[in-house]
Amino acid sequence: MAKSTQLIDNEVFRAYATYTAIVLLKMMLMSLITAYYRITRKAFVNPEDTESFGKGESAKKFLRTDPDVERVRRGHLNDLENIVPFVGIGLLYALSGPELSTALLHFRMFAGARILHTFAYLIPLPQPGRGLSWAVGYSVTFSMAYKVLKTAWLL
Amino acid sequence: MAKSTQLIDNEVFRAYATYTAIVLLKMMLMSLITAYYRITRKAFVNPEDTESFGKGESAKKFLRTDPDVERVRRGHLNDLENIVPFVGIGLLYALSGPELSTALLHFRMFAGARILHTFAYLIPLPQPGRGLSWAVGYSVTFSMAYKVLKTAWLL
Amino acid sequence: MAKSTQLIDNEVFRAYATYTAIVLLKMMLMSLITAYYRITRKAFVNPEDTESFGKGESAKKFLRTDPDVERVRRGHLNDLENIVPFVGIGLLYALSGPELSTALLHFRMFAGARILHTFAYLIPLPQPGRGLSWAVGYSVTFSMAYKVLKTAWLL
Repeated sequence: MAKSTQLIDNEVFRAYATYTAIVLLKMMLMSLITAYYRITRKAFVNPEDTESFGKGESAKKFLRTDPDVERVRRGHLNDLENIVPFVGIGLLYALSGPELSTALLHFRMFAGARILHTFAYLIPLPQPGRGLSWAVGYSVTFSMAYKVLKTAWLL
Repeated sequence: MAKSTQLIDNEVFRAYATYTAIVLLKMMLMSLITAYYRITRKAFVNPEDTESFGKGESAKKFLRTDPDVERVRRGHLNDLENIVPFVGIGLLYALSGPELSTALLHFRMFAGARILHTFAYLIPLPQPGRGLSWAVGYSVTFSMAYKVLKTAWLL
Repeated sequence: MAKSTQLIDNEVFRAYATYTAIVLLKMMLMSLITAYYRITRKAFVNPEDTESFGKGESAKKFLRTDPDVERVRRGHLNDLENIVPFVGIGLLYALSGPELSTALLHFRMFAGARILHTFAYLIPLPQPGRGLSWAVGYSVTFSMAYKVLKTAWLL
């Protein structure tokens, strides 16, 4: 197992692993929140999901969209759109030899911004709360991509 | 090339590579199934996709949603929401030095659960078939994230 | 930092890092294009996003879907569905010891195809422009997955 544990012994890589696990777990949490709202609001999309509420017409009325469910789903999709680039570019960034303190600054800002973004989306907070938290995460990923391209550039 | 083949010589990493390729190929298959249903059901979303059916009003009737197409698309999005965390957390898990047998157990359960999930979604099977297969994949990813955070924790 | 810079010294891995950063940045660009169309078309989905246009009924008319916004969003989702497998399988492929020239051919074709796909989707070009560019990216990822499974296979 020696080979594979070399990377995880590297401090920058450990920080990357920690923050990536945190933001991916946060993203996974959106599935549970969606399920919670679907069940409490009785708003489903698949006919087979409403069968426990009875057969036929009485169950059909639960096949509907609900504003709270749709809001969580938009937050979930926004996570996918932003956390996927962070995970991919962040891995390359962690392997490009940044200073630990610089790397930690990037990872902490991204994780903080995405957690704030979720609260801003779900409460919801008035704009530009959500917009700003989105922009911070976006900028951090952009900054890491710049370092990756400067270090690795081979077209 | 010596450096880069060290990781792929590691058995846990080889298992991760195998199962990651399998679940990502499975996810990619959803695109083909969507295309198949769009063509056979004649249900498109982009006007330029219906031009081979004629011009103007006669083509416009194919710009519609179809329950089978939407069902595959929901399965595809669910794959994205669940396979992305597996790929990201699974990589870190594979590098955190788990026993091969434990790692294989995680990877096999996840891949099996996601394949089952797709069948449960597309056939569709009565609930809780789809719900349980989703929960197994979710729990496996959570278990790997716990190992990653325990090994790598650096906040 | 020595450990972590070994991978980035490998030429195939540097090429992977370069093209992965490029396609992920291209995907991130879709968020900005969506925001641009939402603002210029005044088509929003969250009530809190329209508050700067006034309160109550006067703002509600901006809560609507717009064909251009929806088109960019479909392009964005298609990116997620195709670039996620490239990033995951491409990493394993880069670690499976391919020839640099072969790897560059794969990465260049994928990046070129996805950039073409975005233009084909947003202009839009007549079919089969978008379909072909999608198929090229899909086939490249499939070819890399074949090499990964041949090299790493451990089930």
